[in-house]
Amino acid sequence: MIKKSNKVVLLLSGGLDSAVVLSICKKLGYEVIAITFDYNQRHKVELNCAKWQADNFKCLSHRIFKLDFFGGSSLTDNIDVPKNENIKNIDNGIPNTYVPSRNIIFLSFASGYAEYKNIDKIFLGVNAVDYSGYPDCRKEFIDGFEKLINFSTKKGLCNKKFKIETPLINLKKKDIIQIGFKNGVDFSKTSSCYDPSKEKICRRCDACLLRKKGFDEAGIEDPLWRK
Amino acid sequence: MIKKSNKVVLLLSGGLDSAVVLSICKKLGYEVIAITFDYNQRHKVELNCAKWQADNFKCLSHRIFKLDFFGGSSLTDNIDVPKNENIKNIDNGIPNTYVPSRNIIFLSFASGYAEYKNIDKIFLGVNAVDYSGYPDCRKEFIDGFEKLINFSTKKGLCNKKFKIETPLINLKKKDIIQIGFKNGVDFSKTSSCYDPSKEKICRRCDACLLRKKGFDEAGIEDPLWRK
Repeated sequence: MIKKSNKVVLLLSGGLDSAVVLSICKKLGYEVIAITFDYNQRHKVELNCAKWQADNFKCLSHRIFKLDFFGGSSLTDNIDVPKNENIKNIDNGIPNTYVPSRNIIFLSFASGYAEYKNIDKIFLGVNAVDYSGYPDCRKEFIDGFEKLINFSTKKGLCNKKFKIETPLINLKKKDIIQIGFKNGVDFSKTSSCYDPSKEKICRRCDACLLRKKGFDEAGIEDPLWRK
Repeated sequence: MIKKSNKVVLLLSGGLDSAVVLSICKKLGYEVIAITFDYNQRHKVELNCAKWQADNFKCLSHRIFKLDFFGGSSLTDNIDVPKNENIKNIDNGIPNTYVPSRNIIFLSFASGYAEYKNIDKIFLGVNAVDYSGYPDCRKEFIDGFEKLINFSTKKGLCNKKFKIETPLINLKKKDIIQIGFKNGVDFSKTSSCYDPSKEKICRRCDACLLRKKGFDEAGIEDPLWRK
């Protein structure tokens, strides 16, 4: 009998969510092939966090792909990241931290890499509850993408279907933090802030505020806010 | 009244088909923003052809994006490109020149770039008649992709829908060559061969054979075969 592969590809950003997904993959007994993208993001500190997490959770391999990215977002260009004193402000439409086509590019790359490595499962940490309102973080997008690659790739057509796994998609940030805490994620080595300076978080962007709210509700102290 | 933009994004590979699409775009009066990918393809000669065509047809801009690509194909890795003495051999399944997820990565990139530039139309030269059997050249893929980005991007959700234009998809190679000929495409500055050496075509790969068949049927002499 051929042993079923237990290797998976994981999109590891260096953020909190994907670090928790990595811990979940390890709990489930998967061997993890992690990939990260250097797309000229201004929060490059997340690349070091991704490396640290991949090493700490003993990923089988970790590769950082350099993408000659075009921009179009306050996360990549010289545009001010919106700052909110109040968490209630963040639900108004799609903010300028939205990066055009980011998740579809990353997932397309991940599925090509998975096909190359003969791997079926791709994990990513998208979340559609406590998030910044990006349309490519929703379940409809993930389902549509999975369907699309399964009839447009050699692998998908050969009945070795891809499965896109999004274990966090319907969880609140609080729950994600509690799962990570149980699984031993070191949150001091995760990056969320959209606008860090000298590795210090801004404490006012959507990502900082969502993170703070999550830790507060989880009753856990965030090592990054303590600093 | 706001003048409707007549700018389009074109995926320009340097191959024959995308050069013909470029000539069609110009005939239709579009201003063309061309993008090309350097993905470690062994037929890098096509990048020079892309530059030449973009310049010749006066594209508004032409950008070559360097992608840190993973491989998985005889077009990128040290794997023999299949050679056929007989054109009839090439219909047997998907050949090893297939590059995992290539078109979905390129189209995702193109749509992100189009969103960044506030452009609705994306042209590409896929063809599902005289082609190598790649699943990501078929109409089902293009339609699925268009649907997907229109609900997973800010642009698509704001009722400025993307339209993916594939004017060659149902044409025979012969017809594509005849259109290009009428539109003044210089075929000597297009690259098709999957396995060129020192800029000489191999004359035996699928791409060479499909090209030869097309020119023969069109009754036009191919400047590359004459050499």
